[in-house]
Amino acid sequence: MKNSNKNDLETLVVALGGLGEIGKNCYAIMHDDEIIVIDAGVMFPKDELMGIDYVIPDYTFLKENESKVKALFITHGHEDHIGGVAYLLQQVNIPVIYAPNQACGLIKRKLLDRNISYDNLKVYNEDTAVKFKHFTVEFFATTHSIPDSHGIIVTTPNGKIVETGDFKFDLTPIGPMSDIHKMSDTGKSGVRLLMSESTNALSPGFSASESKVEEELQEIFEKKKKGRIIVATFASNIYRLKHIVETCKKYNRKVALFGRSMENNIEISIEGGYIKDDKIFVSPEVANTLAPEEVCLLCTGSQGEPLAALSRIANGTHKQIKLRPTDTVIFSSNPIPGNNASVAKTINQLYLQGVDVYVNNQENEIHTSGHANEEELKLMIRLIDPEYFMPIHGEYRMLKAHQDLAVDCDIPKEKTFLLENGDVLALTKDKVYKKTNIQADDIYVDGNRIGDIKNVIIKDRKIMASDGILVAICNINISEHKLLGKINITTRGFILVNENEELLNEIEQVAENTVNKELTKKVINYNELKSQMISDILSFVYEKTGRRPIILPVILDIKK
Amino acid sequence: MKNSNKNDLETLVVALGGLGEIGKNCYAIMHDDEIIVIDAGVMFPKDELMGIDYVIPDYTFLKENESKVKALFITHGHEDHIGGVAYLLQQVNIPVIYAPNQACGLIKRKLLDRNISYDNLKVYNEDTAVKFKHFTVEFFATTHSIPDSHGIIVTTPNGKIVETGDFKFDLTPIGPMSDIHKMSDTGKSGVRLLMSESTNALSPGFSASESKVEEELQEIFEKKKKGRIIVATFASNIYRLKHIVETCKKYNRKVALFGRSMENNIEISIEGGYIKDDKIFVSPEVANTLAPEEVCLLCTGSQGEPLAALSRIANGTHKQIKLRPTDTVIFSSNPIPGNNASVAKTINQLYLQGVDVYVNNQENEIHTSGHANEEELKLMIRLIDPEYFMPIHGEYRMLKAHQDLAVDCDIPKEKTFLLENGDVLALTKDKVYKKTNIQADDIYVDGNRIGDIKNVIIKDRKIMASDGILVAICNINISEHKLLGKINITTRGFILVNENEELLNEIEQVAENTVNKELTKKVINYNELKSQMISDILSFVYEKTGRRPIILPVILDIKK
Repeated sequence: MKNSNKNDLETLVVALGGLGEIGKNCYAIMHDDEIIVIDAGVMFPKDELMGIDYVIPDYTFLKENESKVKALFITHGHEDHIGGVAYLLQQVNIPVIYAPNQACGLIKRKLLDRNISYDNLKVYNEDTAVKFKHFTVEFFATTHSIPDSHGIIVTTPNGKIVETGDFKFDLTPIGPMSDIHKMSDTGKSGVRLLMSESTNALSPGFSASESKVEEELQEIFEKKKKGRIIVATFASNIYRLKHIVETCKKYNRKVALFGRSMENNIEISIEGGYIKDDKIFVSPEVANTLAPEEVCLLCTGSQGEPLAALSRIANGTHKQIKLRPTDTVIFSSNPIPGNNASVAKTINQLYLQGVDVYVNNQENEIHTSGHANEEELKLMIRLIDPEYFMPIHGEYRMLKAHQDLAVDCDIPKEKTFLLENGDVLALTKDKVYKKTNIQADDIYVDGNRIGDIKNVIIKDRKIMASDGILVAICNINISEHKLLGKINITTRGFILVNENEELLNEIEQVAENTVNKELTKKVINYNELKSQMISDILSFVYEKTGRRPIILPVILDIKK
Repeated sequence: MKNSNKNDLETLVVALGGLGEIGKNCYAIMHDDEIIVIDAGVMFPKDELMGIDYVIPDYTFLKENESKVKALFITHGHEDHIGGVAYLLQQVNIPVIYAPNQACGLIKRKLLDRNISYDNLKVYNEDTAVKFKHFTVEFFATTHSIPDSHGIIVTTPNGKIVETGDFKFDLTPIGPMSDIHKMSDTGKSGVRLLMSESTNALSPGFSASESKVEEELQEIFEKKKKGRIIVATFASNIYRLKHIVETCKKYNRKVALFGRSMENNIEISIEGGYIKDDKIFVSPEVANTLAPEEVCLLCTGSQGEPLAALSRIANGTHKQIKLRPTDTVIFSSNPIPGNNASVAKTINQLYLQGVDVYVNNQENEIHTSGHANEEELKLMIRLIDPEYFMPIHGEYRMLKAHQDLAVDCDIPKEKTFLLENGDVLALTKDKVYKKTNIQADDIYVDGNRIGDIKNVIIKDRKIMASDGILVAICNINISEHKLLGKINITTRGFILVNENEELLNEIEQVAENTVNKELTKKVINYNELKSQMISDILSFVYEKTGRRPIILPVILDIKK
């Protein structure tokens, strides 16, 4: 990645995360001895990554070029853009972080939670310009589901690069308008490369306005004047929380919050001045003393997450809230792909308890995405009017659909780049081209340990998840070639021990036969003995039960 | 469940499965000393049921009333209606099974696979009438995604009961029309209770015709005349397979089948005469020798199932089929809730390989459901015109939506019954009412063992799936209160042993301290020792790693 000719240096762009996935956005722009980083997100793992808490990018490239890293810029405060900051700071020295106000509040809390002290977190706004030796970094306001979302303009020696952050165009937004005039001016000034987010590139048309959602939610409040109203939504969707709170005020309902992320986000939004009326909030205890028509419960769990507030309310295990038949539950959300089944489960439980349930559909538009649909993505391309285009922030099928939209908007296909994490895009005076690629794997965070979960562990977890484990322990006197005592068979997640004594005795016998047979050999090889035990026990067990648990032989050499 | 007055016996209706769920349909109708059963399905378990293969109903009620059971009637050949037949036959004597032709073929194969011999499987058609002492059972043809689907009319001493089976109204079907005239006549003759399926009760309007799907698929074949075409669809959707095969014939493409269920269903459909041209099928080997434009690959995996043909083709692990850039892949299917993420993964992999992908959407209507939408459900209610209504075959939210539709169709709400599995509905001359309830739990089938998986095993599997297991083995001489040798720590799915020697040594030390402390007690209690080990090791391990594996202490008493 060295540039050979100092007079004609290339500017390099690389995604450490964010391509081919929704999550862990992290883009580096490098020129000569300077690197700036845009966003440091986490990804929430799919079910197939058994038990993993988060996925973060491999920061090796930044670590290896640590002295060049000048700053981290944050587009907005969502987890897939800021969730990796603490991990990045633990591995790489970042001289300064620039973030907009709401994101700053969230990052500070995150660092506090993890006991990381960091002094150089600076707030930027739309008027800020940050100058480096090679780069100038500026910002334009966008509309998204969290306040202070920005796109980033990086002026490099090889032209302007625009990274949109997350955005939609909402022409009647809750909160300020996106700055379409600055986008337009930036476009007129000449943009070399547009990196634009692709989350909803597969959704046709123009996304619904948040104001429409506000209206439709108000209609439900108007209709349901008697019982309690329980609203579940994304805690990170600050504008949604804002207008729900305002609607509660209008209908004289106090608001009680459920779920830690809901409390955190509301707190930071009050601090930031986005939500003004803090007297409307009451504790769950107080809420329980008020008349039903005076209460709104605002809670997490819109995705049916088993431990979230709404799920526990729905299945009757919530300590403070018991459902009443006059309650109305509103899902101001859509299920994220993969969560449909758990959301459906929650809805079924709510119906079983006899409450009214509203979900987002054609009849009740009570949710809209914070991301741009097709027509909005095209509008961004037209406004920025770039020479080259690189879709970011999306699964591969979304990046591809977004590439097609760019081609529809008159960008020649050969000037669009469908890249993967680690691919390096080079900008020269003459051209933009895919150059090489660097290491950009997924790093797993499990518990408080980063990167020590390997595929073999996940594979073991998968087998145990489906068929359990069987441990066979034998005490052996190796020098005398003698098995001491009985073989101990212990299982978890395989069969119930007390209901299967006979089977367990048979397994013990199978293991004993194998061990005794191996012990007649002249030279006893531990590994051979173990693998023979595994294979004999497994085939016996499979024949008897149709299950294939992990077989774990433990051989203890008792020296006399 | 005894009827006290012999002169005025009640007719009882009970769902052993099918209410509050999609799957394991099984309904019993009982009068005096006669029981007839409608359908015997399985349910495919949700992810939360770690490793379980199937869920079947608890057949205890039928077992306890075995002498009364006169017959099993099958509405059609899908797994959620016939998948439990083999398990039912193993537990309860069923004198005779009546099934339509296609279902018969599938049941026979199922029994053969499981080595169950059964002589009394009879084919019925729309003209069949089966008479018992108290019941007469008749049938009407419906349209569904498999041939020979029927609704069932049971004339009882307390009036007619109609069970619809699965249906839609397709006025331009592939295959025969449903017999709306017989439905109408049945309605005119007076129906006491309608039990109608609710799968799509939440879908507005009228479902698209299968003919529309045929047209749109043909358009793709017309457009893509050069490369191979790969179609993934439900193997159980026989009419879909039928018209795809016919389209292939029209476009001079041979068809190669991938996936065992695809081969089985095509074979049985050829035997049954539903698919006529059996010369069009070629082996994968032959397909690989033909020109791309002469081939269509018809495969399983439309739900992104990891081991299905399409998934392996997409991720490059399929032995016979490697993708080429000129290939076109068609998903003639929708993701079933819960499968969205795995379907998206497959699509991403396909795009990464550079092939064209078609999915069902507004632009390309290449799938339609086999189940009735709202307007069709209302049409069934109007045609059958029952006095009482009981929605069946659906999750609770679907049953509830279907109940609302019935009320819209002028059935008084108090004459509709939103029931759960095991609830007993009683029909008398005067009224229909919910009487009592019987045992109707979920029974898990795992491997070849039925019902021996309990929640404790699933709980263990869940913990191991997320955090692994740690086994601590110690040899103890109890009488001498002495620990012999070192404690052996073995783990799976928790941490990598070779990268964590130090941590493992520390854990060993923690365990040793606990054991030695417990051994100083006068009376050594095994259970106390074990639970002390679990609690000490777990808190140490959680502090060090943030993970909570299962801690499994094994204490071997070495008697000298």
